[in-house]
Amino acid sequence: MEHVKRIKREVVYEGTIVDFCQDTMELPDGTLQKWDLVHHRKGAAAVVAVDNDGKLVMVKQYRPALDRETLEIPAGARDSVTEDTKIAALRELEEEAGYKANKCELFFKIKSTVAFCDEFIDVYLATDLVETKQNLDPEEFIDVYHVDIDELVKKVFACEIEDSKTVAAIMAYAYKVKK
Amino acid sequence: MEHVKRIKREVVYEGTIVDFCQDTMELPDGTLQKWDLVHHRKGAAAVVAVDNDGKLVMVKQYRPALDRETLEIPAGARDSVTEDTKIAALRELEEEAGYKANKCELFFKIKSTVAFCDEFIDVYLATDLVETKQNLDPEEFIDVYHVDIDELVKKVFACEIEDSKTVAAIMAYAYKVKK
Repeated sequence: MEHVKRIKREVVYEGTIVDFCQDTMELPDGTLQKWDLVHHRKGAAAVVAVDNDGKLVMVKQYRPALDRETLEIPAGARDSVTEDTKIAALRELEEEAGYKANKCELFFKIKSTVAFCDEFIDVYLATDLVETKQNLDPEEFIDVYHVDIDELVKKVFACEIEDSKTVAAIMAYAYKVKK
Repeated sequence: MEHVKRIKREVVYEGTIVDFCQDTMELPDGTLQKWDLVHHRKGAAAVVAVDNDGKLVMVKQYRPALDRETLEIPAGARDSVTEDTKIAALRELEEEAGYKANKCELFFKIKSTVAFCDEFIDVYLATDLVETKQNLDPEEFIDVYHVDIDELVKKVFACEIEDSKTVAAIMAYAYKVKK
């Protein structure tokens, strides 16, 4: 397929977790355009954790990007670019929600927002949970909820849950278990 | 809930479609931290368009952020910050895929990546389609496919479709029509 080509990438600002780049793109007719590219340095992992009552383990936290609290599946950036995302998913489940999982497998993968960002999130499905202890970073304030999948589906269609990884995860799990 | 507070936001780089900001956040103990915030100026809309055979209208395009082609639902930014997202969704369906829709209702809403970006995408469900004509921007090169929902679900779980709005849309529609 004919398409634009990247001929230059310039990091114009180094952030804390992402860098802002400007790409110079060449159209097939030779025209040049500047395109934004947000580079996520580490990539991320998330986890659909199903407790022993069949409910999903959800975390509620304040998100400055939205200036309000959101209900999400546990998730976080990898510790390094070489960390296995399964390890990262299990660590976030334990740190944010206070659970270990005896079973954990890849569920699906997402790229957050392909138009201008390269962040990826590998989403795992964890079961056979064992309660441990929440272990939050100093800037994290997280409440844990156990929620029935039917209630979560209602919240998606009522636009009460909007975080993209969480919407994808809820609908994928709801599809899997729908009778 | 106790949480961090934003005490300053500074635009450090103005991009083409998004701006890069650095927020100064204050923790409850008084510690200050710098947090990244990518501000999407216009917000966006997307559309799950179901053709008269029950297949989904999908668009394939090269995405520089991923350096490969991806299969997605039609989507795009609003023309302005006041544009109704339903108008934007219907425009993108016509421009990218060449269809008008006689019926179109809000399906769900997402925020792409709440950890560091305020982009929102309102996702509509469009039916009763009428073929018109694709009308692409000079930098757009898009192929249109009509795909069965069962095949799309397989592609999600095979990690062949990863775009977050598209994964959420496929799984929400698959849930809705699952027998």
